[in-house]
Amino acid sequence: MTTKIALAQVNFFVGDIEGNAQKIAHCVEQARTQKAHIVVFSELALSGYPPEDLLFRPSFYPRIQAALAQLLLLSQDIDIILGTPYSEDTHIYNALFYLSEGKLLARYAKHRLPNYGVFDEKRYFTPGHQPCIVHRHGLSMGLLICEDLWFAEPAAQALAAGAQCLISINASPYDHHKPEQRVAILHQRQQETGLPIIYVQSVGAQDECVFDGGSLVLNKQDKLILEAPYFEEGLFYIKAEKNDFISLEKKRPARSKESLIYEALRFGLLDYTQKNHFKGALVGLSGGIDSALTLAIACDALGVDQVEAIVLPSRYTSDESMHLLSEQIKLLGVKHTTLSIEPTYEALLHTLGDHLSTDMTDLPHQNLQARVRGILLMALSNQTGKILLTTGNKSEMAVGYATLYGDMAGGFAVLKDVYKTWVYRLARYRNEQSYVIPEKIILRAPTAELAPNQKDEDSLPPYDILDRILEAYIEEGRSLEEIAAVSFASEQDIKRVIKMIYRAEYKRRQSAPGIKITTRAFGKERRYPISQGFV
Amino acid sequence: MTTKIALAQVNFFVGDIEGNAQKIAHCVEQARTQKAHIVVFSELALSGYPPEDLLFRPSFYPRIQAALAQLLLLSQDIDIILGTPYSEDTHIYNALFYLSEGKLLARYAKHRLPNYGVFDEKRYFTPGHQPCIVHRHGLSMGLLICEDLWFAEPAAQALAAGAQCLISINASPYDHHKPEQRVAILHQRQQETGLPIIYVQSVGAQDECVFDGGSLVLNKQDKLILEAPYFEEGLFYIKAEKNDFISLEKKRPARSKESLIYEALRFGLLDYTQKNHFKGALVGLSGGIDSALTLAIACDALGVDQVEAIVLPSRYTSDESMHLLSEQIKLLGVKHTTLSIEPTYEALLHTLGDHLSTDMTDLPHQNLQARVRGILLMALSNQTGKILLTTGNKSEMAVGYATLYGDMAGGFAVLKDVYKTWVYRLARYRNEQSYVIPEKIILRAPTAELAPNQKDEDSLPPYDILDRILEAYIEEGRSLEEIAAVSFASEQDIKRVIKMIYRAEYKRRQSAPGIKITTRAFGKERRYPISQGFV
Repeated sequence: MTTKIALAQVNFFVGDIEGNAQKIAHCVEQARTQKAHIVVFSELALSGYPPEDLLFRPSFYPRIQAALAQLLLLSQDIDIILGTPYSEDTHIYNALFYLSEGKLLARYAKHRLPNYGVFDEKRYFTPGHQPCIVHRHGLSMGLLICEDLWFAEPAAQALAAGAQCLISINASPYDHHKPEQRVAILHQRQQETGLPIIYVQSVGAQDECVFDGGSLVLNKQDKLILEAPYFEEGLFYIKAEKNDFISLEKKRPARSKESLIYEALRFGLLDYTQKNHFKGALVGLSGGIDSALTLAIACDALGVDQVEAIVLPSRYTSDESMHLLSEQIKLLGVKHTTLSIEPTYEALLHTLGDHLSTDMTDLPHQNLQARVRGILLMALSNQTGKILLTTGNKSEMAVGYATLYGDMAGGFAVLKDVYKTWVYRLARYRNEQSYVIPEKIILRAPTAELAPNQKDEDSLPPYDILDRILEAYIEEGRSLEEIAAVSFASEQDIKRVIKMIYRAEYKRRQSAPGIKITTRAFGKERRYPISQGFV
Repeated sequence: MTTKIALAQVNFFVGDIEGNAQKIAHCVEQARTQKAHIVVFSELALSGYPPEDLLFRPSFYPRIQAALAQLLLLSQDIDIILGTPYSEDTHIYNALFYLSEGKLLARYAKHRLPNYGVFDEKRYFTPGHQPCIVHRHGLSMGLLICEDLWFAEPAAQALAAGAQCLISINASPYDHHKPEQRVAILHQRQQETGLPIIYVQSVGAQDECVFDGGSLVLNKQDKLILEAPYFEEGLFYIKAEKNDFISLEKKRPARSKESLIYEALRFGLLDYTQKNHFKGALVGLSGGIDSALTLAIACDALGVDQVEAIVLPSRYTSDESMHLLSEQIKLLGVKHTTLSIEPTYEALLHTLGDHLSTDMTDLPHQNLQARVRGILLMALSNQTGKILLTTGNKSEMAVGYATLYGDMAGGFAVLKDVYKTWVYRLARYRNEQSYVIPEKIILRAPTAELAPNQKDEDSLPPYDILDRILEAYIEEGRSLEEIAAVSFASEQDIKRVIKMIYRAEYKRRQSAPGIKITTRAFGKERRYPISQGFV
């Protein structure tokens, strides 16, 4: 007996229960025309993931119930496996429903509720404890939800209860280690249980998280027989015979880490603007690497016609910057507008008079210039309805090398979780696809150009050293001594950087959202106090 | 046998382990001079509450251990009960330590870990399961930590294990219902167990939460014999005889809800500025009620000499506003500076030219004016090192009636969690103490004065109706039908307000912190997606 199974890798929208149900119905229809017997959707497909405190709204569950009732009708001649929140007796479950022949054949509640990193599942859900095995179409399917697969017990429990294959539904946020980690975990479970595994992952951006697709199938011989494309929706088919799986898809070439990170940023930006109904994007272009890469990503994401570069020169903007940014504008063929910040800056100096330091290189002066840019950019954003993208990177966000309401002003921070050294790698990667960032922008020394002859490295350690410190401290949680060993920086420099990280917490609290691509992004993944006496 | 017990109500500082240990040592010394036998500190006294992800830093626990070793030495002739994080075998516990005769006599791990509202304790801690009874000084003390007391089981378990009195250590964030709720819960536990209860609560502000003190003692007859002052540090004494308690403190008069809320805001602001080393505060004064109340609170918190009012008139600022704000400046005797926003606004109009709508009453124009104010205020803040206070209230924050980087610019949002109708109540309360807010400011119709003859109620429902809708939706989680019943607003108006709440989420993400005083504050207590299709 041969069973055809469709893996539905879909971009669900948090809270849009009816829209998600329609997407599910559409995929079921497609799978039916392909003569599939079973179609599998991702974790919390019906609500989108994560619904956060929407799960506490009383009106949430009647809408879920109504959508499920509709979907039940579609399961007359095709089985539907999907994730949905489910409420019973004041408890909420992160559940898997197995719909078949117009009935709810089985229900499973997630056992392992992640409550670390970006996850708050114990805030919402009651864990399940029973395995769920469904015998249909000659298969004995052990059903699991996401985190369940990252521990040995739930799969072992399913095996003990008679499972002969595993189906896991997932909503797993991307970081640059995640794709390979998922494959490794699947192999581990396969080796422990001997069972083949279907891993259906969602795709789509939700505020700071992006779900990357790349659904997986391992067969009984522990071979990876299917790796669905990343950052793309689609239905992917396998057939099952005697509780083993055979792919019906062509093999795709492996992708580099750079290409996946770039794609996470591009796709994350696109999906954020779409889900929040923006008509296009604005980027303040400075002639530096951060705004150059941000602009390239924006054009790749939204289409060059939807993007506008805004050039905001000051007395400190070098000819080189103006020349390089003009070159990039030409390379991309993007619309652009130039507005001088000088008249407004002059007016501010006049109004502030002797309330302001006379040393024009002082921080208040630098901030003033950055904020005039912010106010001009936001005026254009308000007037056009285009979202303003901020251009700061993770290294700057970490140490507070950014001006609140200045260069931090904007609706989305494309490079928020990208270290400066990675900004360079991604710029080079982008140029390998087609030349859009003038080489000299990549080669020149970073400068904010807010004071004469200013270089970032005057006030910060060189970025390669800074980034090693930041990664060791923020992501790996290492001690001072360990960081000294991996960064080759002095303890004094490391201490200074750590202090800067803590002091900048108040700025980060007021920063725009941006896509997480590392293992510990600022935001809900890293919860530090503003007021603290630890450092 | 009579035992004297000191309740130490102390302002601990998150992360400042050595500083907190010194404060504890100082209190122990004081209690010793008062011949106390036992001194009781609050939950996580040594680390401050909540330490958040500092709990994951490897260098955290050696510092905790070193501090505990010092405190052990102080327990030779006086028993010390205190809360501290404790790490063992990769687990972290929210623990209570009982130090006596230079030794660790007992250790208790919190059973009930709150993971709702502002709390994330399951992110960090492993729960305990065993009761902890200490027999010392003729007492049989059942020891509990905060949330434990909000459920029946832990106290019942302690009773069953031989407790004849209960001591609970707490770090309980204030909201305007909390003081009476705590008393009610203590009575409930007393009635279930028949045991007298000591409830030691911390005091101090930590970012958006304020801990209000008001430690409590119930005797065996279920009588509230001690209610320590709110928002004040201190040692408060009782004596214990035959496992019952007798207060050694005078009774204090009951406080009104208004006085406690006002004090929460005043104290919360003061503590935030102190813990973050600000030298003073700036308030942009408009002649409206929000900035008037913010200025009054700032002067009460920091002292009038540390505060400066900044007046930023525009073409739309009425004579009445100028007159009223001058009157308040005189009443308070506060320093002030007046800077016109017109020259900068003009320069921006000139620079933006035909990129901007010609209708000067359009939103982009209103935002520009608000942002010129923001940039001027931030320049003064940067130059002086004084924190800029934002003046927006919760009703505005809820519906997005505020300008990002404009009136939302600043380091602390004093009224962030205060509904507009409560702004009025607090202004009247403040004037009852001494007249500092001109009566006409309280009586006039609210206006942003960003366009000619603008009134808030042109674009928003009247605030009394708006606030009823907001409270029902945000705090009580009510459905549309229920809100219609309690607010007397039309379903159409309610729907419009709900939509505004969702649409403004992106603004709130970039807002300054402010003290929580309601049962559901924006921020970590209310976790909603920016991108959502629910409404």
